[in-house]
Amino acid sequence: MNGAESLIRTLLASGVDTCFANPGTSEMHFVAALDKVEGMRCILGMAETVVTGCADGYARMAGKPAVTLMHCGPGLGNGIANIHNARRANAPMVNIVGDHATYHRPFDAPLTADTEGLARAVSHWVRTGNSSTRVGADGAAAVQAALTPPGQIATLILPADTAWNEGGEVAAPMPVPARPAVAPETLSAIARALRSGEPAMLVLSGQALSEAGLAAAQRVAHASGAKLRAPTQIPRMARGRGRPPVDRIPYVVDSALKVLAGTRHVIVVGAKPPTAFFAYPGKPSLTSPADAVTHVLARPEQDAVAALEWLADELGAPKRVPLPDTGNRLELVRGPFEPEAFAKTLAGLLPENCIVVEDAVTSGRALFAPTFDAAPHDWLQITGGAIGHGFPCASGAALASPGRKVVCLQADGAGMYTLQSLWTQAREKLDVVNVVFANRIYKILHGELLAVGAQPGRVSNELFDLARPTLDWIKLADGMGVEATRVETLEGFADAFKAASGRRGPFLIEFRIA
Amino acid sequence: MNGAESLIRTLLASGVDTCFANPGTSEMHFVAALDKVEGMRCILGMAETVVTGCADGYARMAGKPAVTLMHCGPGLGNGIANIHNARRANAPMVNIVGDHATYHRPFDAPLTADTEGLARAVSHWVRTGNSSTRVGADGAAAVQAALTPPGQIATLILPADTAWNEGGEVAAPMPVPARPAVAPETLSAIARALRSGEPAMLVLSGQALSEAGLAAAQRVAHASGAKLRAPTQIPRMARGRGRPPVDRIPYVVDSALKVLAGTRHVIVVGAKPPTAFFAYPGKPSLTSPADAVTHVLARPEQDAVAALEWLADELGAPKRVPLPDTGNRLELVRGPFEPEAFAKTLAGLLPENCIVVEDAVTSGRALFAPTFDAAPHDWLQITGGAIGHGFPCASGAALASPGRKVVCLQADGAGMYTLQSLWTQAREKLDVVNVVFANRIYKILHGELLAVGAQPGRVSNELFDLARPTLDWIKLADGMGVEATRVETLEGFADAFKAASGRRGPFLIEFRIA
Repeated sequence: MNGAESLIRTLLASGVDTCFANPGTSEMHFVAALDKVEGMRCILGMAETVVTGCADGYARMAGKPAVTLMHCGPGLGNGIANIHNARRANAPMVNIVGDHATYHRPFDAPLTADTEGLARAVSHWVRTGNSSTRVGADGAAAVQAALTPPGQIATLILPADTAWNEGGEVAAPMPVPARPAVAPETLSAIARALRSGEPAMLVLSGQALSEAGLAAAQRVAHASGAKLRAPTQIPRMARGRGRPPVDRIPYVVDSALKVLAGTRHVIVVGAKPPTAFFAYPGKPSLTSPADAVTHVLARPEQDAVAALEWLADELGAPKRVPLPDTGNRLELVRGPFEPEAFAKTLAGLLPENCIVVEDAVTSGRALFAPTFDAAPHDWLQITGGAIGHGFPCASGAALASPGRKVVCLQADGAGMYTLQSLWTQAREKLDVVNVVFANRIYKILHGELLAVGAQPGRVSNELFDLARPTLDWIKLADGMGVEATRVETLEGFADAFKAASGRRGPFLIEFRIA
Repeated sequence: MNGAESLIRTLLASGVDTCFANPGTSEMHFVAALDKVEGMRCILGMAETVVTGCADGYARMAGKPAVTLMHCGPGLGNGIANIHNARRANAPMVNIVGDHATYHRPFDAPLTADTEGLARAVSHWVRTGNSSTRVGADGAAAVQAALTPPGQIATLILPADTAWNEGGEVAAPMPVPARPAVAPETLSAIARALRSGEPAMLVLSGQALSEAGLAAAQRVAHASGAKLRAPTQIPRMARGRGRPPVDRIPYVVDSALKVLAGTRHVIVVGAKPPTAFFAYPGKPSLTSPADAVTHVLARPEQDAVAALEWLADELGAPKRVPLPDTGNRLELVRGPFEPEAFAKTLAGLLPENCIVVEDAVTSGRALFAPTFDAAPHDWLQITGGAIGHGFPCASGAALASPGRKVVCLQADGAGMYTLQSLWTQAREKLDVVNVVFANRIYKILHGELLAVGAQPGRVSNELFDLARPTLDWIKLADGMGVEATRVETLEGFADAFKAASGRRGPFLIEFRIA
């Protein structure tokens, strides 16, 4: 058995059975070994940013890593943006990156690159497998690293001769560390703070946004009066009717400051202290009040659900507490696109148990709260700010979740980074309704320019404008085998969305925004 | 004046007046400063791999760097593949990569990434500009680094506060080092080797493939009987009627070994010793005969033209020597696509003084020799093996060369990595005829799998096949504003190509290969 085969058999033994791939010559023995081994599902992406974005969406829904297969140096480079998003989502991911044979590297052939340097810049765990007899064990260690809470990026570089040499040995799965428990004194201190009656806010992310985490957090809020918030970016959240309607901290710094104003105790649960996405002249980096105390109830890798449940019990909260009224009314709104009206319309249309993937940038900021009362669903979001995340993340989420409809809310400028994902959706017949918000401008940058105190002029208008020429998303989708339609009103959207939801397979709705 | 404005004024003073950009929030002060300063042409790419590929093509034709503007971390990541190609072409490039304000970085906001680590992995020169008063000088140093022979990648990381703080100072251009001359004893030793009468081959790249370099090399060949070859990948070569028809060393290792067999003296001129692109089990990494002596006439940064001219004079070559007969006949061939027949057809169609950009992978291997007798032209090629180079390189070459038709020969699988380039071509009305070889398969990988000794099976066929669904390049191009047509025969291609060449602006011909 060669190294490649031992690595694939090890990955399968460790529970990794899905491979998103865009291989090159240095990966050919790995590909040949895939032909010999049953059980690994392989999905081709026509650019590595599709491959890694799919792996992120897959991991967030499956709760376990897929393996990516990428080509040395530049191939990995193309995949970095969505590895970054996955890293910020604490999504487990195992990357296999081929490289030149060990003896060939010194000759500096044209594709020779600092693969290890690139890998280190974006991974928690990096290893170069230099021995075909040990590469099975390297693979088991990579899966272990990926699954180590809260979820990590593990990159195994596989020189071609490590793959093709004989002597491969299949390694047994390695144990996955459990989530560490929160120390009792931490729990007690936070219980005291909550009992003080001083204004408190729990900021929930990761495990705390699961159904169990949210239920426990709602009990804490009920018993203590603390407010609940999610960070501006969330990896995954259980939402919809019957689940606590926890809003996010707004993206815009001034709005975030308002939301946090007056808070005395900021209690982070699987989240980081609230931080502005960018720095702006004269504005703070941290958005908590200067005199607030930040408490860490659970670090991202800790058992946030158990900590929240202990806290709820300690505070004497009943096992079931009423949910706050969101004030939302489900209604189909008519007329042109307007973010809140769109959100209200969407809320009434989301299918039961669907998965929403949001990379809608400026069109997406108003979508969150008005959709709290939709049918139960999971909401996945771009976490690392590397735009172009929606299409591939939705594709990977669909692969991980057969039988569940995926709704991808994608800004047009962002979508152009990874439009190749649509081809993978068509090829794999993925059940995704893609909604493209076609405002034909990098609208966020227009706002950001004003936010840093400047006024748009000749060059900035040129660099933000996507209208010359206007993208035709119907043709782009159709060119890759995905059926598509264009709408210009909310009622047109509702009709198209209902039709698309009623059938299986990928579909794209271009919402042309006036 | 803030740091950003001082940097832009410094770049202009240093002769850099073209900016390929895909900015984000951390670059907004740079963009705002562009609005205030006259003279910098800004071109938007809808993905960073377009931005860097354009900058590569621009630099190869302009002989000076463009500046790229990219977003921190993942933005640079998206641009790495075509930076790699530019690096392998010794193309000068100045990258400005924004980053968080220096004081904001420690808070690890979602986009925080190891921008410097990524930059180091692909650049010759990296600096983080931490002072608005010194960032002008940093910019001048970056241009100097980029222009240092043979051409380098210089990446200046620009934290947002360095851009927005006041006190910016415009720096004077820094001197560009001249190409070092070749030592007289090196020249004499190589002259002796050539006079020995033993079989010799000059391997020419970089400056040696310029019109002057080739003319001098042809004189050396005439006087000594040495053979002339270019490496498998060439950054730029002056070709066509009246110019020495120097063929490349083939990509396939066995063919390369045959071309080099019997050579006693391998004389590299601005090139590296002939090396296999990849390692294959049981095949050598170096393709020169084991008993050959490798001489370095000129390193890439040295003055290869002067060295070749000295050598030609020393060997007593006449100033003008006859060119070898290529045996080519210009003829329009009919029938379906076949690489040699296509090349013959293309040879008769290439417009005078055009620029050919080749990223045609398997469809492109036979294009080179049969087009020696076309009208005079420059030939640019993917150099680093990071596929998806053609579309953006052609776009940048067109921007650098107004009045010259650009012919982009693009494989379909490779083209899908950077199809967003077509939008930039439409927006800037670039004079590019794109020819897409639509064989609907990663055909090179099929061959490489056989080359490593394996047979295609279920998974490998799945990972190489691009036919399910079939890409429609007419719709993809049209969706981005580029007119397109499909041909299935050589005579159909000839008609379409003539029509496209006779008009200005971008056009795409999908050659559907049976």
